[in-house]
Amino acid sequence: MARITFWFEFASTYSYPAAMRIEELAEASEVEVTWRPFLLGPIFNAQGWATSPFNLYPAKGANMWRDLERTCAELKIPFKRPTPFPQNGLLAARIATYGLSRAWGVAFTKAVYRTEFGDGQSIDSPTVLKGLVADAGGDADAACQGALTEINKLALKQATDQAIALGVFGAPSFVTDDGELFWGNDRLEQALCWAVSSD
Amino acid sequence: MARITFWFEFASTYSYPAAMRIEELAEASEVEVTWRPFLLGPIFNAQGWATSPFNLYPAKGANMWRDLERTCAELKIPFKRPTPFPQNGLLAARIATYGLSRAWGVAFTKAVYRTEFGDGQSIDSPTVLKGLVADAGGDADAACQGALTEINKLALKQATDQAIALGVFGAPSFVTDDGELFWGNDRLEQALCWAVSSD
Repeated sequence: MARITFWFEFASTYSYPAAMRIEELAEASEVEVTWRPFLLGPIFNAQGWATSPFNLYPAKGANMWRDLERTCAELKIPFKRPTPFPQNGLLAARIATYGLSRAWGVAFTKAVYRTEFGDGQSIDSPTVLKGLVADAGGDADAACQGALTEINKLALKQATDQAIALGVFGAPSFVTDDGELFWGNDRLEQALCWAVSSD
Repeated sequence: MARITFWFEFASTYSYPAAMRIEELAEASEVEVTWRPFLLGPIFNAQGWATSPFNLYPAKGANMWRDLERTCAELKIPFKRPTPFPQNGLLAARIATYGLSRAWGVAFTKAVYRTEFGDGQSIDSPTVLKGLVADAGGDADAACQGALTEINKLALKQATDQAIALGVFGAPSFVTDDGELFWGNDRLEQALCWAVSSD
């Protein structure tokens, strides 16, 4: 079966529509998806950016929010801009790293995005995240403990290093098994086509 | 009739496929297109960038070239990366500013993009540009003289100021008459839809 890896970061705005769309589109294309959380912070820091480029470049940021609003309207998914932006997604990413080898990982990941960009709520609170784990069918306490082990924290760091090695510089990114990199929610269909035709 | 303004810059890579696609798509949607050259240099300089962000951020640049190659392959238009990048498009933009109120402006603009990103050739030579004006049906000497008048040079500067005032921060950009801004070749279809539905 053809495969793609879906690299996402919880602070990334366009990862939200990608996370909402990918399951249905991948199923229709018969492509298996591996969900991989990583951190953009170290990548942005290495470029000298202390925050999101959407904050650093206001005209670009203004267009992104409007474009995301239009994108969500077209997909008929809720949209509400969270404050502050970017949200601190570190704990959520650690929980997702732990959860994605378990049955509830994908549902949890989608719930985090829905909370953040659908409801405009913060995603840094352990209480909120525990609730989302439980809703997704996981053991909330075990998830928070598992997320904070050294081995799990290291796994997230290594995922970020692996993403960088694959050429990833933003999120969402899609990488096929033959190493082709597609960046952005609007490249999802193309990535799936590539995965199928190179399989 | 519905309308959009197509803001382009000759150094912009994704303006190439946009310039090649826009006439056919706009005609099919019954949208009238106003072609407007502007300069990204002043916009980038104001952000502290001395060159293209695709040069400043190598991973982003590498993906852009590969993505553009894939995009051109899908559109079945030729692609060859010009060296150096970005090309100096100032004289071409001045000629286009002069030419777009004449019959040959659009054909000239497309020919510049084809030369630059289809053939990978330089676009800063007056001789090359004069040839493209003549091929497009214009008077090459008159075009070069007209391009270099103070009033024409000022018109290009004012176009850039107007683009900035509309929120433009990159190219290609599409702006509808009700002020909606769409950025990127991959937003062309959406911009045309918007123009039609808000007409």
